[in-house]
Amino acid sequence: MKTMGLSDLRLVRPARFPDPEAETRATGAVDVLAAAQVNEELAAALAGCVHAVALSARQRDLGPGSGEPRTLMPRLVELAAEGPVALVFGNETSGLTNDELLACQSVATIPTVADFSSLNLGSAVQVLCYEARLAAWDGRPPVAEGKTTPFASAPATHDEIEGLHGHLAQVMTDTGFFNPQQPGRLLQKLRRLFARAGLERDEVNILRGILAATQQKTGHGRR
Amino acid sequence: MKTMGLSDLRLVRPARFPDPEAETRATGAVDVLAAAQVNEELAAALAGCVHAVALSARQRDLGPGSGEPRTLMPRLVELAAEGPVALVFGNETSGLTNDELLACQSVATIPTVADFSSLNLGSAVQVLCYEARLAAWDGRPPVAEGKTTPFASAPATHDEIEGLHGHLAQVMTDTGFFNPQQPGRLLQKLRRLFARAGLERDEVNILRGILAATQQKTGHGRR
Repeated sequence: MKTMGLSDLRLVRPARFPDPEAETRATGAVDVLAAAQVNEELAAALAGCVHAVALSARQRDLGPGSGEPRTLMPRLVELAAEGPVALVFGNETSGLTNDELLACQSVATIPTVADFSSLNLGSAVQVLCYEARLAAWDGRPPVAEGKTTPFASAPATHDEIEGLHGHLAQVMTDTGFFNPQQPGRLLQKLRRLFARAGLERDEVNILRGILAATQQKTGHGRR
Repeated sequence: MKTMGLSDLRLVRPARFPDPEAETRATGAVDVLAAAQVNEELAAALAGCVHAVALSARQRDLGPGSGEPRTLMPRLVELAAEGPVALVFGNETSGLTNDELLACQSVATIPTVADFSSLNLGSAVQVLCYEARLAAWDGRPPVAEGKTTPFASAPATHDEIEGLHGHLAQVMTDTGFFNPQQPGRLLQKLRRLFARAGLERDEVNILRGILAATQQKTGHGRR
């Protein structure tokens, strides 16, 4: 839940709490555990909430508000503007009772294949939190700063790419692989390949370096 | 992975396999574990695959094929028509190496909040399998047979709903709560409420039963 920006955990009659195993498993998220509120009843945990979505492995019809996480979460995010909203989960073995479900305003069912529908509780929580977070971002997650790529350089410009194609055609001609008098579709195929790749400047430089090295080896200087 | 209809598990240099703890955790899915293929190298596990998507906690730019699971999975499902495709995960602690990433055709990054991006491996696998399954269903999961609701009855028909509104207006008039000479917007508000609820036949019957009972108590017979 912390990975998806949720921090308010409420436990109803936990078997053990605090629990050393929970703390071990919560690597990096012990703050969420430490701040968890413990309640005797679901009603107390939901006090003040303007909307609660229950998770159920079986599809239950509580009216128009029920269905898949992907359709429910945008509405839940809207309602969060009016007050706290909740995701409600049962325990690993037996899920929520009917009375607990009916204390919620809608019921989410994670789509699964028909013959094996029991997600682990942890997996189900992750899927719902993930859908809630994506809904809060309206499908457009921000590009994370400081988590950028070790691979990418700036995109190559048009003239850099043309320079590569010219260089490549020269080497292919010099080596006899390509005959400009009978070009066929070879150059077009190479253009298609590199267009699809979306060449970066560094990559163009590497490819031209390879071409230049073969030219030196084969005795054809660059013209 | 089994909940999302995936069955072909390949393990590369597992620390322990077979492993009693894995079997305990795989309740109901031991068939997937039992059929798992063990490889010494990632390349062997990917042999024959036409496309592999690697999971990375950091965004990496391997070109146009990389990004969020939600945008990548539909393409992966398309490619699955041409041959086996793969989802590739590193281990819990260190993820995939750069070389392993580069053996794949694209890289998926699950969107998270900026300051806590490390999903558990199991959670990440669930999210990717879930997105792959939804993509395979083209966003329209089948309604599961035999998993239907203990709550819903047939939807109420137009005339049943009109009957309820007439009955309600009668009781409100009889009790003096509603004055047909000065109706205001009361009836409209009640219509809006029940329209939003999407009434079922059983519910209309219950509501009319309540109204009839109050009529008996207050001495106003139904007209």
